[in-house]
Amino acid sequence: MTRAIGYAAQDAETPLATFHFERRDLRSDDVAIDILYCGVCHSDLHQVRNDWNNTFYPCLPGHEIVGRVTAVGPEVTRFKVGEMAALGCMVDSCMKCEPCCAGQEQYCSHLPTMTYNSKDRQDGSLTFGGYSDHIVARDPFVLKLPEGLDPERAGPLLCAGITTWSPLRRWKIGPGSRVAVAGLGGLGHMGVKLAVGLGADVTVVTTSPSKERDALALGAHRVLIAKDRTAMKQAARTFDMVLDTIPVAHDVQPYMHLLKVHGVHVIVGAIEPLPSVHSMLLVGWQRSLAGSMIGGIAETQELLDFCAAKNILPETETIAIQDINHAFERMERSDVKYRFVIDMASLKREIAEGASVRST
Amino acid sequence: MTRAIGYAAQDAETPLATFHFERRDLRSDDVAIDILYCGVCHSDLHQVRNDWNNTFYPCLPGHEIVGRVTAVGPEVTRFKVGEMAALGCMVDSCMKCEPCCAGQEQYCSHLPTMTYNSKDRQDGSLTFGGYSDHIVARDPFVLKLPEGLDPERAGPLLCAGITTWSPLRRWKIGPGSRVAVAGLGGLGHMGVKLAVGLGADVTVVTTSPSKERDALALGAHRVLIAKDRTAMKQAARTFDMVLDTIPVAHDVQPYMHLLKVHGVHVIVGAIEPLPSVHSMLLVGWQRSLAGSMIGGIAETQELLDFCAAKNILPETETIAIQDINHAFERMERSDVKYRFVIDMASLKREIAEGASVRST
Repeated sequence: MTRAIGYAAQDAETPLATFHFERRDLRSDDVAIDILYCGVCHSDLHQVRNDWNNTFYPCLPGHEIVGRVTAVGPEVTRFKVGEMAALGCMVDSCMKCEPCCAGQEQYCSHLPTMTYNSKDRQDGSLTFGGYSDHIVARDPFVLKLPEGLDPERAGPLLCAGITTWSPLRRWKIGPGSRVAVAGLGGLGHMGVKLAVGLGADVTVVTTSPSKERDALALGAHRVLIAKDRTAMKQAARTFDMVLDTIPVAHDVQPYMHLLKVHGVHVIVGAIEPLPSVHSMLLVGWQRSLAGSMIGGIAETQELLDFCAAKNILPETETIAIQDINHAFERMERSDVKYRFVIDMASLKREIAEGASVRST
Repeated sequence: MTRAIGYAAQDAETPLATFHFERRDLRSDDVAIDILYCGVCHSDLHQVRNDWNNTFYPCLPGHEIVGRVTAVGPEVTRFKVGEMAALGCMVDSCMKCEPCCAGQEQYCSHLPTMTYNSKDRQDGSLTFGGYSDHIVARDPFVLKLPEGLDPERAGPLLCAGITTWSPLRRWKIGPGSRVAVAGLGGLGHMGVKLAVGLGADVTVVTTSPSKERDALALGAHRVLIAKDRTAMKQAARTFDMVLDTIPVAHDVQPYMHLLKVHGVHVIVGAIEPLPSVHSMLLVGWQRSLAGSMIGGIAETQELLDFCAAKNILPETETIAIQDINHAFERMERSDVKYRFVIDMASLKREIAEGASVRST
């Protein structure tokens, strides 16, 4: 076992604080990663606060991890010590079921092992995430960080990025496609950048006229104000996809009117009971209301490679880990454009200072 | 103008009764069809009763029409006098919009002209359907009745058939697919036959254990009783498609649990506001909730050709047109397996008798 340090919550009410724990010794197919950066996802906050009633404590979040390989098990062939690597929301799955064999480990029939707040498949221990100095994970779940992808900003691709990439790819968005991105937060801003990168014509649909400038700066071709009934009516039946990143329960019907025949409304934000939908909105134009959750390992690698090739990166604000609780507060009031990333050098300074305090 | 006779309702309360009217003179691209058989669809009853608040009276229903060509306009090249022909739910559309150009005239951006209760695109006259002695329609909307397809039973393919065929084809159902057909009426029984014909493994999901024998007789491989929670749980995540033919508003969630990753639940029966769906059912497995409405002309022809090749026919009960009101009553209490077809010889006897009465 190796001593490790991170920021964890001991219960739903207490702020995150320094937490000492141990990482397992390397198994034969394990990769050890020195964490350089970790993105801050809204779900980290939900999990820490036990908003989904499924949190194990201590809860050490973080699933947008970028770092450098420091050791590999004897069976690892994909990584060498010193290489850059990334780790997203999953660290393991059964790798045998139909979804796993189809490269969709996120839908593993036996449930994937999540990077934090999950039980390790072999020893049952609680998994701890990326708000820490290092991590150990199975080779097949570790991603290559392509040359040229800024490690400080790449982290959010591993959750916000893949969550929007997977449906864009599944529904074959590309040149000629018209995509409406509903909501413009961590997910929405990546949806805009990726859909634009894929060659689609992209409209941001928002209830906040104040977001127009930001949307255009991110690359959106235009903005549609959801409360403007005339504009919404004029835009009816003109989109192939609504990528719905709105994080709370909402009526999807005004957005579904925007879809062409065969159009799809994909929910990636709200995990809630949805208000009633009139089936005519589906039946009348052979439309679909769908949902999507993160993405498989192969498609996450595809995303990283695509972003490196196209120079697409999340908009991030780098923070020290000591500021994480304040960052959570700001995230709650949407005061971030668009994703916080923790620079883990801040944690290492804390460790070094602690050591120096102890040694004096 | 040509004198015509049929059975029509004069208002929402009065039974259908003999109605004299005129069919238009042939336009250059028109085909005149002597109607031999016409299927009875549940929507005929809804329309006659003004259940959708959009009925024009007199209302002369019928959109599952099989007959013989008696005359053609000078520009008609696809049909000759004496050939068998069929006519479904649509008799015209703009033929220029994106859906029309994609062969999906049922989703015409300017709305298709329906076979009855619609306004003719050229002269604005009310369209009258197939409960009549003959009909006139534009060549591109008239279908070929393939050799070997029993004209007495083929009619219901034009609505119940195509309504289930279109989603089966859209979502590429074939050998290896697992399809759950929910509901076993006019639509459901065609869904079973067509999905089996396409090579899928087909399960009927029903709340009525009494329907098991019928489902198996229609070719279903097994039956799942929707109220049997253990069986439903065992069947979770094993289907590629739920073909939902249930004609009333209902909770789709117990059925959605049956879907695999990427599975689709297609509503073809209920045109109603649906009870709330928890988005996790969509998000967690990248599932879709979709809808579908009849089908395009080319895919309807494809269906007719497929059914002729595979010897697939609806289960029908032939009635005289004079019994239509009684048939409506029986249909309302689901006392039909599975579709009534009117033998139009009964109308011609009535005409002949009327003529003989008048001549005496």
